[in-house]
Amino acid sequence: MIDRWIIKSLMDTDFYKYPMGQFVWKYYPTVRVTSVLRIRTKNVHLGRILDLGELREQLEHARTLRHTNSELHYLRGTNEYRLRMFCEPYLEFLRHLALPEFHLERNGDDIDLRFEGLWCEQMYWETIALAIVNELYSNKLMEPLTAFEREVVYATGRLRLAEKIKTLRQHPTIKFSDFGSRRRFSAKWQEYVDEVLRDELPDQFLGTSNTHFANRTGVVPMGTSAHELQMVVAGLHEDDGTDDWLAVSQREVIDRWWEEYNYGLSIFLPDTFGTDFFLRNLTRHDLEQWKGFRHDSGDLFTFGEKNILARYQKEGIDHEKKLLIPSDGLTLGVMIRADDFFGNRIKVSDGWGTNLTNDLFDGSWRGDLFYGPLSLVIKPILADGHHLVKLSDNLAKATGDPATIERYKRAAGYTNTDRVECVY
Amino acid sequence: MIDRWIIKSLMDTDFYKYPMGQFVWKYYPTVRVTSVLRIRTKNVHLGRILDLGELREQLEHARTLRHTNSELHYLRGTNEYRLRMFCEPYLEFLRHLALPEFHLERNGDDIDLRFEGLWCEQMYWETIALAIVNELYSNKLMEPLTAFEREVVYATGRLRLAEKIKTLRQHPTIKFSDFGSRRRFSAKWQEYVDEVLRDELPDQFLGTSNTHFANRTGVVPMGTSAHELQMVVAGLHEDDGTDDWLAVSQREVIDRWWEEYNYGLSIFLPDTFGTDFFLRNLTRHDLEQWKGFRHDSGDLFTFGEKNILARYQKEGIDHEKKLLIPSDGLTLGVMIRADDFFGNRIKVSDGWGTNLTNDLFDGSWRGDLFYGPLSLVIKPILADGHHLVKLSDNLAKATGDPATIERYKRAAGYTNTDRVECVY
Repeated sequence: MIDRWIIKSLMDTDFYKYPMGQFVWKYYPTVRVTSVLRIRTKNVHLGRILDLGELREQLEHARTLRHTNSELHYLRGTNEYRLRMFCEPYLEFLRHLALPEFHLERNGDDIDLRFEGLWCEQMYWETIALAIVNELYSNKLMEPLTAFEREVVYATGRLRLAEKIKTLRQHPTIKFSDFGSRRRFSAKWQEYVDEVLRDELPDQFLGTSNTHFANRTGVVPMGTSAHELQMVVAGLHEDDGTDDWLAVSQREVIDRWWEEYNYGLSIFLPDTFGTDFFLRNLTRHDLEQWKGFRHDSGDLFTFGEKNILARYQKEGIDHEKKLLIPSDGLTLGVMIRADDFFGNRIKVSDGWGTNLTNDLFDGSWRGDLFYGPLSLVIKPILADGHHLVKLSDNLAKATGDPATIERYKRAAGYTNTDRVECVY
Repeated sequence: MIDRWIIKSLMDTDFYKYPMGQFVWKYYPTVRVTSVLRIRTKNVHLGRILDLGELREQLEHARTLRHTNSELHYLRGTNEYRLRMFCEPYLEFLRHLALPEFHLERNGDDIDLRFEGLWCEQMYWETIALAIVNELYSNKLMEPLTAFEREVVYATGRLRLAEKIKTLRQHPTIKFSDFGSRRRFSAKWQEYVDEVLRDELPDQFLGTSNTHFANRTGVVPMGTSAHELQMVVAGLHEDDGTDDWLAVSQREVIDRWWEEYNYGLSIFLPDTFGTDFFLRNLTRHDLEQWKGFRHDSGDLFTFGEKNILARYQKEGIDHEKKLLIPSDGLTLGVMIRADDFFGNRIKVSDGWGTNLTNDLFDGSWRGDLFYGPLSLVIKPILADGHHLVKLSDNLAKATGDPATIERYKRAAGYTNTDRVECVY
């Protein structure tokens, strides 16, 4: 049975939206941002597949939601990163928050979905809109199937989950969280996966990035921060008129984030403008204070060895106490390799996304339909009139218009040329 | 369909258990208390009606429950009375809390159910054990009925609820909360009632005393305090060897409660040893600081007029800003009378219990079975070897052995002789 509304709670979003949300609400309350939906999966044309009326209704329904009193209790009571990490005025802001208007239209075979408004409001659209588009796409994949074929899809999902659990039990040192809200097969399926993992792998499954399901299943809400922070703040500094505007913007994010959340949420996300640039601007003091790094693009093993471990060693910092969070299109194979490769040299906690919450199909095609998870993102493209850019350590993940990308490459001294197509 | 387990969450209890629980955990951590189940409904013999094996299983199942991480988020995030009203060490205590052992045996036609242990642990049994006994009794009432007759029971409950809502809409100044966890027809029915009231009477339904359903429905968790606090603390002072030990114990509870919760939870419960005694020992300063009174026995209107309003007037305190919480077996008729009677002279917020959450039957008898709500209580009888007493303003609600009751009457200068049988 398919529920009428895909999003039933505003907390059905990634937890990182809240620490980022408070950060933006506090430091950048008047900044206006535009974000757009992009599909990275080749040959899938959502304008030919999705019913735009239905998509519009689902998005409009999400706009009617508000944070309930109990949800605010939950957020106020969050203690996993820092006691009282959310201040009362921000919780009061959340109480009244409604998702702002969106712009949706057909654009040839594709769809144009964008969110323009105050950053501190429109930023909550990201994971919610992605989950809606993904679930409508899943529904379209199920539509042509017979009742029995649909049962087989779910049975496949269950067997693959069972296989994952079996393998993970053979690697008890692997610790991981569900990072798959945005590209999940469906809300129900993600909740099911979280419940099963909580019951079956209590010592390895650390939590879920989905705040609503963390609340419902009792596991820890997991979150760090996202590229959008650094992208927007960089845009705001672009016409500082200095040579080091990009480094200054990076410093601003790092310092304010530490001030706001201290050790609890101190995970660097270094690849926004290339990891080399980020690390060049990091001090020994930063490295010593912060808990660790999230890896989101480029080769995980090169990154871990050459960039992270080597740097900690060079600075004389004990990396065995630091944390690495791989989160770039993880599969169990990579997680096992990482477990072996890093051993006790650094703590590893995997952020497992799409392959965990959307692994029910076989990757085949039926006409326009690709039977597999889509690689969808919603990224900010404009902030107060400035074009925004993410470079990342994999040029296939770069976003932004070509001229601005070039400008940022120069500012960052970016030399990487790797380009690996994104499966997830 | 009847769920296998009646209690599914330790938060399926009255909210007041938590502020009281923290109070007891902090100030009386080593005190041992015994509480017993008492039935005040005439001619109902639970030993002949309930299956003791099933009762034991339900109680044992409740002992397996723990506060989940999300429930602790909820409690930590409670802000309706005072921000951060629960301290971290108490929340940590709750995380590990399991309901302690219970003693259950048949005693002729009746049952003997008692809870002996550390007060700070055994006190959580009260509402949970009451809800279990009540729901098992409800199940016994449903057992001899045909499928259709059962449907009629629920239909009757719905129609009575609809009638209440209709009447309440005609009296929009009546504000009330659900105080009916302990004597509800069933857990499911209470949740249904709370959901309906939230949706149908958002401006009049202020919240529910049930913490779990407050969380699930998003309404405010409502709570004050209970007689057990004053009863146990009085017992601990009984052999102070002074003339004023009872007044001293009352002072101790009042002062520590204020220190702990300040204005937010400052509701006097004056009838434990008779309202006259309580009021004699209350200062003008107390009356000025505290928010108001809960009424739980004796005539509401005499209490309100002669004891409360007159006293506020005598002290020159503006009673229009004070709060009166009637909670003694309320029915809609009394609530309407109180609304008219008190008008704007004092704010009134009704704590509506049994008649709200267990109003599906007609009060008839079939053999041993009384088709109506039972008047059940669980009261402390011993604290560190001291016999405990509640006198209340209605001698039918008094508890304790006769000799101790007489001792307390002397200590309190108790002269009341009213005795009105408890329907609820």
